[in-house]
Amino acid sequence: MLVEERRSQICLGLDPDPARLGRFTIEFDGLGSAAEKAAEAVTEHSRWVIESAGPACVAVKPQLACFERLGSPGWRALEDVCKLARAAGLLVVADGKRGDVPVSAKAYGQAMVGQTSSPWGEADGLGADAFTANPLLGADALEPMVAAAEAAGAGVFALVRTSNPGAADVQDLQTPDGPVHEHLARMVDSFSGRLAGTDGKLSGMGAVVGATAPEHIARLRDLMPRAMFLIPGVGAQGGKPEDLGAAFAPGRAAALIAASRSIAGADDPGAAAEDLRQAVWAISG
Amino acid sequence: MLVEERRSQICLGLDPDPARLGRFTIEFDGLGSAAEKAAEAVTEHSRWVIESAGPACVAVKPQLACFERLGSPGWRALEDVCKLARAAGLLVVADGKRGDVPVSAKAYGQAMVGQTSSPWGEADGLGADAFTANPLLGADALEPMVAAAEAAGAGVFALVRTSNPGAADVQDLQTPDGPVHEHLARMVDSFSGRLAGTDGKLSGMGAVVGATAPEHIARLRDLMPRAMFLIPGVGAQGGKPEDLGAAFAPGRAAALIAASRSIAGADDPGAAAEDLRQAVWAISG
Repeated sequence: MLVEERRSQICLGLDPDPARLGRFTIEFDGLGSAAEKAAEAVTEHSRWVIESAGPACVAVKPQLACFERLGSPGWRALEDVCKLARAAGLLVVADGKRGDVPVSAKAYGQAMVGQTSSPWGEADGLGADAFTANPLLGADALEPMVAAAEAAGAGVFALVRTSNPGAADVQDLQTPDGPVHEHLARMVDSFSGRLAGTDGKLSGMGAVVGATAPEHIARLRDLMPRAMFLIPGVGAQGGKPEDLGAAFAPGRAAALIAASRSIAGADDPGAAAEDLRQAVWAISG
Repeated sequence: MLVEERRSQICLGLDPDPARLGRFTIEFDGLGSAAEKAAEAVTEHSRWVIESAGPACVAVKPQLACFERLGSPGWRALEDVCKLARAAGLLVVADGKRGDVPVSAKAYGQAMVGQTSSPWGEADGLGADAFTANPLLGADALEPMVAAAEAAGAGVFALVRTSNPGAADVQDLQTPDGPVHEHLARMVDSFSGRLAGTDGKLSGMGAVVGATAPEHIARLRDLMPRAMFLIPGVGAQGGKPEDLGAAFAPGRAAALIAASRSIAGADDPGAAAEDLRQAVWAISG
């Protein structure tokens, strides 16, 4: 398992903002539009962050919104960044929080981890190792994305309790059987057999659980005993590693701790990632 | 208002499946990969559907999943199809059901209807007239997308009650103040002033309400008196125009009826679209 091999549960979030990338202007041969130049700068910035912080991480999490706002050149940069991450030995978690009715959810599965058949051959998707999904549309809409992950040997992280202040608006609404996020947790657990790992203890059917509301983590771990947790909100959003121990109850590989701005925005991303790696490793054993 | 001018509330869904597009192989000069060829076929297919069905429609709704599964060539096809639709005098509803924490939601707003600043100039997004959004993350996460729409004079359709069978799993969960989808409806209504039209009667802050559960439509119209409704599920999914009258209570322009496979998959998309246009126009007045 890569977590044990790299002794890291850190997932390096890449949310590049072109406005701040003026110094990543290495070569623009043949590039014309602002989007093309910005996309090239995004790729070069991501390369630099992966090179410096990658050794302390186990995965990279590109935020798809930050790439697709640059249009087709941005999507090409996304593809290039996924390749750079894989070449550095890191897993790729495509963070697009996709979700739609079943026929469209199937297409998202193809886009993230699958292929699309055509008369001209198979068109490859992003080839991610896992991707984030939005479960608001229910189990039948999650199913085709889980099926795509199953076929690819990949993982899915469904939103259960997010890290933003407004998460409570919908996810914490009370129902007779507990808050909405507990229903989402049970939905995640119902798919866990589909993406179970070889040891049977952990499942690639995972959950996004924010570090900013750590009071939920132990209870959600009880409801999803096998799910991989993807935990954003550490660092810039205020979450603290020492509050996240319950996420690791099934083992050191049971959660990925995502940090974006606190690593990629640091003067020395390598040192910032290594500090976080040590703090998380210490509380996970 | 374009609905009155074109006497149509039909929103032409484009969900192209490359596997079925073998005959759209006009010219592949310089194209190499399967994804590039499939993306070209997607563009040509969309051009044909827009030319034949467009005159009976008021808007086009590309399903983003179907384009992004072809990677960067697919995103370029999406950009081209949006241009084709605009050239045909049609509105563009980018159907990606995006949603994320506020900082990322802002990036989705830039991608759909805005621009992204960079040292090399402004990079344009898709330039859609409206886009679909997922409200599971709450009001603070919807806000940046609404702000982007406000700045662009565009609209947002937030999911309230979707058309798939599993929609009930989460959206119909009961709370002390009604089912979850009523909370979503109130959230939509709370933003309606931000995107209000010039006459004050309708708002570009809209809602996705499926035609497959018409029993909800009158109640949701009461909760969202000014919202534009985007209504999928007519045709292939079983929804019927005659059940949708309540959606048009505020006026003929108060709802768009989306149909995808039943038009684009018909032998004569123009005739299929015209039949639906007449049926909807008749019940909307």
